[in-house]
Amino acid sequence: MTGTAAPFAADDYRARMERAARSAAEAGLAGLLVAPGPDLVWLTGYAPTAVTERLTLLVLAPGQDPVLVVPTLEAPDAGKAAGASALTLRDWTDGKDPYAATAALLDAGGRFGISDNAWAMHLLGLQKALPGTSYASLTEALPMLRAVKDTAELELLAAAGAAADATFEEIRKVPFGGRRESEVAADLAGLLRRFGHSQVDFTIVASGPNGANPHHEVGDRVIERGDMIVLDFGGLKDGYGSDTSRTVHVGEPTDEERRVHDLVRAAQEAGFRAVRPGVPCQEVDRAARAVIADAGYGEYFIHRTGHGIGVTTHEPPYMIEGEEQPLVPGMCFSVEPGVYLPGRFGVRIEDIVTVTEEGGRRLNDTTREMVIVD
Amino acid sequence: MTGTAAPFAADDYRARMERAARSAAEAGLAGLLVAPGPDLVWLTGYAPTAVTERLTLLVLAPGQDPVLVVPTLEAPDAGKAAGASALTLRDWTDGKDPYAATAALLDAGGRFGISDNAWAMHLLGLQKALPGTSYASLTEALPMLRAVKDTAELELLAAAGAAADATFEEIRKVPFGGRRESEVAADLAGLLRRFGHSQVDFTIVASGPNGANPHHEVGDRVIERGDMIVLDFGGLKDGYGSDTSRTVHVGEPTDEERRVHDLVRAAQEAGFRAVRPGVPCQEVDRAARAVIADAGYGEYFIHRTGHGIGVTTHEPPYMIEGEEQPLVPGMCFSVEPGVYLPGRFGVRIEDIVTVTEEGGRRLNDTTREMVIVD
Repeated sequence: MTGTAAPFAADDYRARMERAARSAAEAGLAGLLVAPGPDLVWLTGYAPTAVTERLTLLVLAPGQDPVLVVPTLEAPDAGKAAGASALTLRDWTDGKDPYAATAALLDAGGRFGISDNAWAMHLLGLQKALPGTSYASLTEALPMLRAVKDTAELELLAAAGAAADATFEEIRKVPFGGRRESEVAADLAGLLRRFGHSQVDFTIVASGPNGANPHHEVGDRVIERGDMIVLDFGGLKDGYGSDTSRTVHVGEPTDEERRVHDLVRAAQEAGFRAVRPGVPCQEVDRAARAVIADAGYGEYFIHRTGHGIGVTTHEPPYMIEGEEQPLVPGMCFSVEPGVYLPGRFGVRIEDIVTVTEEGGRRLNDTTREMVIVD
Repeated sequence: MTGTAAPFAADDYRARMERAARSAAEAGLAGLLVAPGPDLVWLTGYAPTAVTERLTLLVLAPGQDPVLVVPTLEAPDAGKAAGASALTLRDWTDGKDPYAATAALLDAGGRFGISDNAWAMHLLGLQKALPGTSYASLTEALPMLRAVKDTAELELLAAAGAAADATFEEIRKVPFGGRRESEVAADLAGLLRRFGHSQVDFTIVASGPNGANPHHEVGDRVIERGDMIVLDFGGLKDGYGSDTSRTVHVGEPTDEERRVHDLVRAAQEAGFRAVRPGVPCQEVDRAARAVIADAGYGEYFIHRTGHGIGVTTHEPPYMIEGEEQPLVPGMCFSVEPGVYLPGRFGVRIEDIVTVTEEGGRRLNDTTREMVIVD
C-alpha cells in the first residue's frame, strides 16, 4: 500500500491529472483508467482504506473533466481526498453494474491505458461492456508517467533517503553476532520509524548462506562470527520511498569475501557513473553487469540492476537489459548490483540515484566500504 | 494480504488443486490461472513476501500437473510453501518474457479462469501472447471454488469467530465516553491479537454521525454520552477470517435509537432464518431488506446484506439481489444489515453464518440486544 499522503494540494493533483491526460493523448490513447494504488495516490491523493472487489476507477480523458467512479459506500472517504475538489465523483451502489457506469464515460472504440495493478476482473468487465475498446498497461503505454519527479518530490525522496542513511549509521553500531536475523530486522524497522517512516516495506537481514538468496527477507537464523550480512531496507516517509542496501561483515572477512565485496562496489560505482541524461536505462545495467562479468562472476548476478522509486518503492524506470528509455533529469531509481554464491554468501550495495543535468546524484551516501560489525 | 498459513499439508493442497482443475473442466475451461492472493494461498499455501510487477502464476489444467510460474528470485521461497511438493516450479529470470513462458503451458485456443485480483498488466500480457485465448474472472467462472468449507476449515472459522466474540465481551467493559474512536479501535486490535489473531483487517469504531457512513473506519472524534457506536472488527486467526459487528450506546438511548436498533436486529434475524440449503443467496438479502423496507427505512440500508469469508474476510458468495447461487452446506458468510441516517447515527449487526443441512449456524453469538456502555 501507499501510506500517508504527501503534502500536496488540490492544484498539484489537478496539474498532474491534466499532464497525464495530455500524455495519454500524445500516446494515441482515448484515456487512462486508474485503479487504487500508487497511480491513484499520485494523481488524486486518494487511497481507499481497503482494496476490495468493488470497482474504484479514475477516468482521465483528454478534454474531459476527471471522473472517479467509486462505490457509494466509499464516496464519503473519497470526497475527503486532497485532490477531490479537482475531480467529479460518480458513485455506484451494490447490485448495480459498475462497468456499465464506467463504459458510459468512455469512447466505445478507444484504446485506453489501465493501471498495471487494476484487477483482471475489472478489465474483463470493461472488455465485455465495450468490446470495441482495447487496452495497454500503464507501464507499457505511459511507463514514464510518474518517473520524472518535480522539485518537491525530489526533496521528499532525499529526505526519505537521509532517514534510511541515518538508520544504517545506527544499525552498524548494534551487536549482530549471536542474535537472530529477525531481531536485527526489528531494530531496522524501529529505526526507520524513529527517523520518520510511516510505513516499513522491507527489512532484509540475510546472513551467511541466506545472503545468497536475493529475496530472503529474514529468518530465525542466529548470526555467527564470520558471516557476511546483506541489509536491504526501506519504506515510505511522508508518502515517498527509501530503499538502500549495504553488506556488512561480523569480524574480519576472508580475502574472497573482501574481493567479492570490492567487485560489487566497483560495479555499483560503474552503474552510478553511467547515469546521465539521454543514456538508455539498459546502459546502467550493462555498466554494472560488465564489471561483475569481466571478473568471472556474471552468472551470480541474477537480477536487474535497479528500479524506479517514488510513491512506491518499486516502479518504472527499470535498469534492465532491453529498456531503451533514455534517462531524463528528475528520474529516481536504485543502482543495486549484487553477487550471490549459492550456499555461501551474498553481497549487494544499493543507492537511490536521481538524474541531474550533469549526471547522477546519490540520495544515499553512507560508506560503500565494507563495514565490520560486532 | 492473507497472513500466516493454516495447518494444512501438501496432500490437502494437492486435493484442492485436483478439485479446482476438475471444476474448471466441468465449467468448460481449459484451465485456471491463479495469481498471488487468497486463491493461491488456498490452493498452494504460498504467499509471496510482496506482490510486485513480476509475474507469479499457478497454472492448473485438467490432466496436467500443476505448475507455478515464479520469478527466479522468489523460487526459493515458493519452494518452501506447504503445497510446494504437490506442484512443479517453473522459474523465469529478469529480462525474459514471463508471458511466453506461461503461454507454453496453455491451450492456445482455450478459455481460462483467472484470479479476480490478477494484475491487468499480466492479463494483457497473456492476451497478447495468445490472441486465441479468452478469459473469465474466477468469481464469474467458478465463484464457488472456495465457498464450501470442509470440516477443518469450519473449525478454523468457528475459532476465529469465537475470538472475535471474546473481543466484544472485553470491549463492552472499556470506557467509551470521552475517549477518541482511535483509542477504542486500538483496544479492539489489541484484543483481537490477544485472542489469537495474527492479522487485524479492520477495527471500525463509528460514533454518532460517523456511524451513518458504513465505511467510516475510525477517527479522532471524541465519543460523547448519548452516542450510538457501530463496532465492526475482524481479521485472520490461523489463516481464517473473523468479522462481526455490534452497535452499542453510551448511556440510555432515545426511543428512536432503540426502535432503529430493534429494526436492524429483526432484519438480521430474518436474514439468518432465510439461510438453508438450496435457497438462492439473494433471498437472504431480500429477507433482511424486507424487514427494513417495510418499516420505511429501505433507503437507509445502502449496502448488500453479506459476503463470504474464508482465507479472506471478503469473498463469494455475496448475499445480494441478483445472486441466484443456491446455498450449500459448508458455505460461510456474513449477515449484516444496517440502517444509516445521514448526519445522525447508524446501526449494523453482523454475524458470520454457516449453512448446515438443517438451516444456518451462527459463528458469532454475543448478544444482539443493544449493549449500553460507559
